[in-house]
Amino acid sequence: MKKKPNILITNDDGIHAPGLRHLWECLRSIANINIIAPLTEKSGVGLAITIRDPLRIEKVETFPNTPAWSVSGTPADCVKMAIKVIYDQPPDIIVTGINRGSNAGRNVLYSGTVAGAIEGVMHNIPSIAFSCWENKDPDYSRTSPFIPRILNYVLEHPMPSGTLLNVNFPRDHLPIQGVKLTRQGKEFWEANPDKRQHPVEEHSYYWMGAKLAEFDEEHDSDIAWLRQGYAAAVPVHVHELTDHMHLRKQKAHFDSCLGE
Amino acid sequence: MKKKPNILITNDDGIHAPGLRHLWECLRSIANINIIAPLTEKSGVGLAITIRDPLRIEKVETFPNTPAWSVSGTPADCVKMAIKVIYDQPPDIIVTGINRGSNAGRNVLYSGTVAGAIEGVMHNIPSIAFSCWENKDPDYSRTSPFIPRILNYVLEHPMPSGTLLNVNFPRDHLPIQGVKLTRQGKEFWEANPDKRQHPVEEHSYYWMGAKLAEFDEEHDSDIAWLRQGYAAAVPVHVHELTDHMHLRKQKAHFDSCLGE
Repeated sequence: MKKKPNILITNDDGIHAPGLRHLWECLRSIANINIIAPLTEKSGVGLAITIRDPLRIEKVETFPNTPAWSVSGTPADCVKMAIKVIYDQPPDIIVTGINRGSNAGRNVLYSGTVAGAIEGVMHNIPSIAFSCWENKDPDYSRTSPFIPRILNYVLEHPMPSGTLLNVNFPRDHLPIQGVKLTRQGKEFWEANPDKRQHPVEEHSYYWMGAKLAEFDEEHDSDIAWLRQGYAAAVPVHVHELTDHMHLRKQKAHFDSCLGE
Repeated sequence: MKKKPNILITNDDGIHAPGLRHLWECLRSIANINIIAPLTEKSGVGLAITIRDPLRIEKVETFPNTPAWSVSGTPADCVKMAIKVIYDQPPDIIVTGINRGSNAGRNVLYSGTVAGAIEGVMHNIPSIAFSCWENKDPDYSRTSPFIPRILNYVLEHPMPSGTLLNVNFPRDHLPIQGVKLTRQGKEFWEANPDKRQHPVEEHSYYWMGAKLAEFDEEHDSDIAWLRQGYAAAVPVHVHELTDHMHLRKQKAHFDSCLGE
C-alpha cells in the first residue's frame, strides 16, 4: 500500500472558510493533513509577512481527526510558522485554497492563497494553489473529482524547484470540461475607489473597490481556457524573476555607462 | 531645455522615513515630484492591498514645494490611489525607497518597496526600487551620485513592459564601486521565531524574527556584486511568471492525463 502523503492546507479566506473545508473533505481520505490557516480573512495580502506584530497560534477543534491551528497573520506567516514551529519535518506538499474568486491572470501576486504556495516553494516544498473564478458563493463541490487527481499528478511528476502550480476553476454556469496546463494570462483586478464621508468626523475615506481589467488574451492562457469552461493550471516560477532577455540586451551598455 | 520628468515617490518605511526624504533630496532639482507614501511603516507587506478597511489620504506639509500625501495603507495602495485619485495623468516614472535593508536576492516579493514598483509596472509606468543592504541606520548620502544617473538611464533607455529595475546598494563599510546590471540572487530572510509569554493573559505568542538564509551565488548576481561593493540593478519581470520550460516539457502529458 502506498504511503499517504503529508499535506499542509492553508488559504487566505481564513480557517473557517467553506473553500478550505471543502479542500480538506476532498483530500482527508487519501492524505495525512494538517491545517494551519489565518484566523481571519486575508484576501489580497499577497506575500505579506507579519514582522511588527506578535503572532498567536491556537489549536482549532472543528476538523475531526485533523490537527488544525489558526494563526493571527497571513498565509505566508502560516507556512513559515508551520515549518518552523509546528512540523518536525516539512510536509510532502502544501495545498492552498480553495479560494473564493479568481487568482488567474495577473492576480497571482496579490493573492494570499497563491502566496501560501509561493512560501512553500521558497522552502522547496511542492505547492498547489486552488481557486474558483466564481466569487459569489461558489459551488466548491464540483471541483471534487479534480482536486485529488491534480494532487496525485504533481506528487508523481514533481515540478521544478521554485515552481508552484496555480489552478483556477471556471465560473459555476460553465460545466468543468477538464484541466489544461497553460500560461498565465493578463487580466487583473484594478482599483475602483469609492469616496465616502465619515458620519461624525470631518474626514473622507475610500474603499479601494475593484473592477476587472480585461485584455486580449492568448488562446492558450489561463483566462482563455477558463472562459471555455476548463480549469486552468499554470506553472508559476518565483525563485528568479530576472528579465534575462533585457539583461542580455542591455548589460554591456548599462555597465559601460554606470558600472565603474 | 529638457522637460523635467514627473516622478511619484513612495516607499514601505513610511512617509517620515529618512530614506524617502533622501530620495526626494536627490531628485527634487531635476524633477517634478509628488510623494504618496504609507502613513506608517509597512515593511514586509509585499504586494498586499487593503480591501477590507477604509483608506484615508491626508496632505503632508513637510516637503517644501512638493505635494505630498500619506495613505493609511500599503505601498501598492499608495500607487493605486495616486493613479486613480490624485493624478490626472500617470507620472512618467515611479521611484520607491530608499529602503532601509536589503531587497536583493529572493527578498523581492516580500518587499513593500519593490511592490510599489511592481504596482507601477502593472500600470505600465516605468518604475525603479532603491534599497540599502545596510539595515541599521544606513548612510543614505553616499547613494546621492548614483540615484539621478540611474533614473536618467532608465528614462533614456526604457525597460520592457512589465519589467522594473530593482537597485540595492552595498553595506556602508564597502565604498560603492559602481552599478552593475545583473541577475537576481538566492539569499532571503528566513523566519526565526521567538516564543514569548504574555505578561498577564495565559497565552504565548511569537515574534517571527529573521535570519539571512545564504546560498552559493552565481558570480554575476545581485548578491555577489553587493558583496564586492557594487550597487546591483536587476531587471525584474512581473507581468508573466509562467515557467515556460516546464510548460513546454509537461503540457502534452498533463493534458492527456487531466485535460478532458
